[in-house]
Amino acid sequence: MPAAEEGAFLSALRSELPSGVALYVGADPLSQSAIRVLIEGVPTREQLDTCPRLERVIIPYAGVPEKTRELLAAQPHIGLHNLHHNAAPAAELALALMLAAVKRIVPHDRDLRGGDWRRRYRPPETTTLAGRQVLVLGYGAIGRRVARACQALGMTVSAIRRSQGAPDSDQVAALYPPDALRELLPDAQVLFLCLPLTPETAGLIGPEELGLMPLDACLVNVGRGPLVDERALFECLRGHPLFCAGLDVWYRYPRSEQERGNTVPSSYPFHELENVVLSPHRGGLTRQNELQRAQALALLLRAVADATPVPNQVDLEQGY
Amino acid sequence: MPAAEEGAFLSALRSELPSGVALYVGADPLSQSAIRVLIEGVPTREQLDTCPRLERVIIPYAGVPEKTRELLAAQPHIGLHNLHHNAAPAAELALALMLAAVKRIVPHDRDLRGGDWRRRYRPPETTTLAGRQVLVLGYGAIGRRVARACQALGMTVSAIRRSQGAPDSDQVAALYPPDALRELLPDAQVLFLCLPLTPETAGLIGPEELGLMPLDACLVNVGRGPLVDERALFECLRGHPLFCAGLDVWYRYPRSEQERGNTVPSSYPFHELENVVLSPHRGGLTRQNELQRAQALALLLRAVADATPVPNQVDLEQGY
Repeated sequence: MPAAEEGAFLSALRSELPSGVALYVGADPLSQSAIRVLIEGVPTREQLDTCPRLERVIIPYAGVPEKTRELLAAQPHIGLHNLHHNAAPAAELALALMLAAVKRIVPHDRDLRGGDWRRRYRPPETTTLAGRQVLVLGYGAIGRRVARACQALGMTVSAIRRSQGAPDSDQVAALYPPDALRELLPDAQVLFLCLPLTPETAGLIGPEELGLMPLDACLVNVGRGPLVDERALFECLRGHPLFCAGLDVWYRYPRSEQERGNTVPSSYPFHELENVVLSPHRGGLTRQNELQRAQALALLLRAVADATPVPNQVDLEQGY
Repeated sequence: MPAAEEGAFLSALRSELPSGVALYVGADPLSQSAIRVLIEGVPTREQLDTCPRLERVIIPYAGVPEKTRELLAAQPHIGLHNLHHNAAPAAELALALMLAAVKRIVPHDRDLRGGDWRRRYRPPETTTLAGRQVLVLGYGAIGRRVARACQALGMTVSAIRRSQGAPDSDQVAALYPPDALRELLPDAQVLFLCLPLTPETAGLIGPEELGLMPLDACLVNVGRGPLVDERALFECLRGHPLFCAGLDVWYRYPRSEQERGNTVPSSYPFHELENVVLSPHRGGLTRQNELQRAQALALLLRAVADATPVPNQVDLEQGY
């Protein structure tokens, strides 16, 4: 992270920690024998091997890369944890993308900036959401918040989640197992993808699944791009102007700082379509983010210091 | 309305009406003596005078022009009614404008369409809404729906409404009288204007009121442009890049079909600002609108036919 942000984050973190916790920043060889908790986005084998007292790794965000799952699966004595501090702003972005797509906020704004009101007098492309059904894939910290807001908009909410054994509905959503997907898609006026990318979820929504949805439906992806087949989504959007999408996650990313200025996010020209809202993988990034991240991290570190159960342990098989 | 839309609207309306109701379309002098209910956007004095049996005027949308209030106030034997059929989609647009403004959906979309991800790496201009306060001005059919959705996003909701005598809070919002406005503004992270324009509400939000709001707040106007001082709002947005606004209602409108292609919506260049979302007075316009309008209108006409109380009577003093 940029130096100024790191400073704010670290000072917020320090202010939240009890005095017994020592914080080492950066790769300090002298500290390796003391480290019990490693806070690292993508931990390496070498980091794990050179810290003999290591008990836990905390990823300071929600997504767990496949590589990290594999690395930690081979070291079962080290617990892996992640942070859900940004679930609220991430759910807010998911709703913003749905409403911007459904209400065609971007093309209306662009036209009116040019003094052009004519789109307002054409037959509307927008849909009333109240009374319609929404299907949330992934009923975790973000999916539940999305479901609550959709319910408040007068929508009927169904959700699919992988973990079994819990009740098959709560006060907000009717809950289904993964194999109910195709049965639910024909009524899904809005489909939210709030899932992690795992071998089981890659390509979950392909041409057949998109073909089952209503022609004027909306797809919102805040999980990972490859959950949805790239070509099938592009062709669905190009072929059905009443269909729409709000996408925060993509298929092509800048691989360096230089590439940030000129990387189109897909091999297909999504950027030419009016019925899609493009968002550069912002998730829960807001001005409050670093403070909230520091608070969530401090909560885990205090639990370690107090020898109480440490929250947010990642299930390495499920990947989240 | 365009001929094709009128056809769909009329056939939907006819299908909802009991057989005893005769529907006259257009200015048919022969029908004037039979007309008991006039359905008209802006009724004229002449229409009222030439229909001797006229009991009620129904405006087929929500806004009641000042001119109509004055006309009907002089004819107290004629009841005035309006339609709230589009409250749900209008509330959805209000929320879409808030989220698009707060999350800076439009500039992020524009940049990423050009392959530019750099804005994502700059310090965020966006705010986490959960835990913040929202103030809704006008707690009618739209304001209540907006309040419910904000509550589901984890926001604390206050509302100001003019009518007294009812409880001072419901399950969603703490309710205040109009004179509490200045006391509430310093905590209003989001301010929704869901009010009609009346002599009392014109200029309700001026430079002093804007100056009381947090510097990173969001103003959403779905009422009427002149509720908010035009110049003060422009200067607030230009001077405070973290402040933002979502505006569906304006200060300048096209006065003819020819002007629809080239009418900037204000004398101030709102269209040059990144922290505002421009929407061309769409309110609750969606593809479902004409069907919903026909159903709401039929409900009133059935009540007239059945001699039961007719809903949605406009209070001519309050203007809604």
